Amino acid sequence: MNKHFTQADVALLEEVLRLRRDVRGNRFIDTPVSPATVNKLIDAALYAPSVGYSQPWQFVIIRDENIKQDVYNSFLTVNHYSSKLFSQQKQVDYKALKLEGIREAPVNIAVLYKPSDTPVLGQSSMKDMGRFSVVCAIQNLWLMARSLNIGVGWVSIIEPEVVKKIVNAPSNTELIGYLCIGYVDEFLDEPELKSKGWQTQKKREEVVFYEQLPSCPTNTKVNVNDE
Amino acid sequence: MNKHFTQADVALLEEVLRLRRDVRGNRFIDTPVSPATVNKLIDAALYAPSVGYSQPWQFVIIRDENIKQDVYNSFLTVNHYSSKLFSQQKQVDYKALKLEGIREAPVNIAVLYKPSDTPVLGQSSMKDMGRFSVVCAIQNLWLMARSLNIGVGWVSIIEPEVVKKIVNAPSNTELIGYLCIGYVDEFLDEPELKSKGWQTQKKREEVVFYEQLPSCPTNTKVNVNDE
Repeated sequence: MNKHFTQADVALLEEVLRLRRDVRGNRFIDTPVSPATVNKLIDAALYAPSVGYSQPWQFVIIRDENIKQDVYNSFLTVNHYSSKLFSQQKQVDYKALKLEGIREAPVNIAVLYKPSDTPVLGQSSMKDMGRFSVVCAIQNLWLMARSLNIGVGWVSIIEPEVVKKIVNAPSNTELIGYLCIGYVDEFLDEPELKSKGWQTQKKREEVVFYEQLPSCPTNTKVNVNDE
Repeated sequence: MNKHFTQADVALLEEVLRLRRDVRGNRFIDTPVSPATVNKLIDAALYAPSVGYSQPWQFVIIRDENIKQDVYNSFLTVNHYSSKLFSQQKQVDYKALKLEGIREAPVNIAVLYKPSDTPVLGQSSMKDMGRFSVVCAIQNLWLMARSLNIGVGWVSIIEPEVVKKIVNAPSNTELIGYLCIGYVDEFLDEPELKSKGWQTQKKREEVVFYEQLPSCPTNTKVNVNDE
């Protein structure tokens, strides 16, 4: 398909990318997410690229309150020790943050990586490629959700092996992402961790380089304005 | 921003997702990709979510033919042994495939993961989250490229440590993706590995489950049509 997208199309995509947010539990509202809408999210995920066309993903769509509660308990376990990793002041900030929406979101999706039983084209020297394919699917789903005015929060403060047991995932699979999904009262203007000062935005010249990385970190090649 | 996207917006995004392809060297054409256009691709990448707002990505934009040739040599090394992983018949198919466009693409981008020196919120129990953030950035870039009618090929048949040396990346960074970028003569209707019969498309019921995975693989809960 040589479909030619227009500048207006580019601008629209740019808006979806720019306005996508990681949504926490204090934003979700009660509006139901229909099975047909969940199917649209899955469709988007299934359009993702996968290494060697291996499609190594599994999606477990969860609405059951007991399952959500079990996952939430795993969040509590990890959150308790994770907060202690930070400095005293950061610990205060950390505890003030709402970091998940497992029970508030009407739909949760556990996204798993199921390794292939046979060799995968493109996954010989870079073994993580299958996992990365699953992440591409999650990002597709996330963007489709935003265009449907639905929020997604990716919760990583959980024990992957515990959550796997909760959803009955075989031992050879890996939990890649746990998503909380629902309509929201608001999409924040900026990432909350930015607006609340948890972490500053990196400058472009800290992350974009030309031809090679500079040998000395202070000797960055800043070509942004030249371009 | 409570921007409300419309059904037409959803349909447009769905088209970008559906028509995105992994592009190989036999598709790239000579039309130059301007620095401003590359900047638009980077903008898209930088809108990606990142765990704990850690923004753990680095992008090395490569136009130098010598650097591309060095990376291509690494491809040749890996491709030689990778082809032997497959059955006799598959090896014939493998060798008939064009699997990269390193030298043909006017722009290459090496995308690196630079781990944080300090603890990252959300990356305590799931250590891969930083890597996954970088993959989200790549997928954003890939979709923006498609909307700009530009092809991207993700080459994983390379030696990551060798490519890191080529772009002078520090030892604590990791190569996540190596992208070949350029205008193309055509976007194929389907993934080439599907249309050429390398791998079949998985059925939806093989990858979508409800509440839990079935205990026995043959006992899949197929609810797709009920939805």
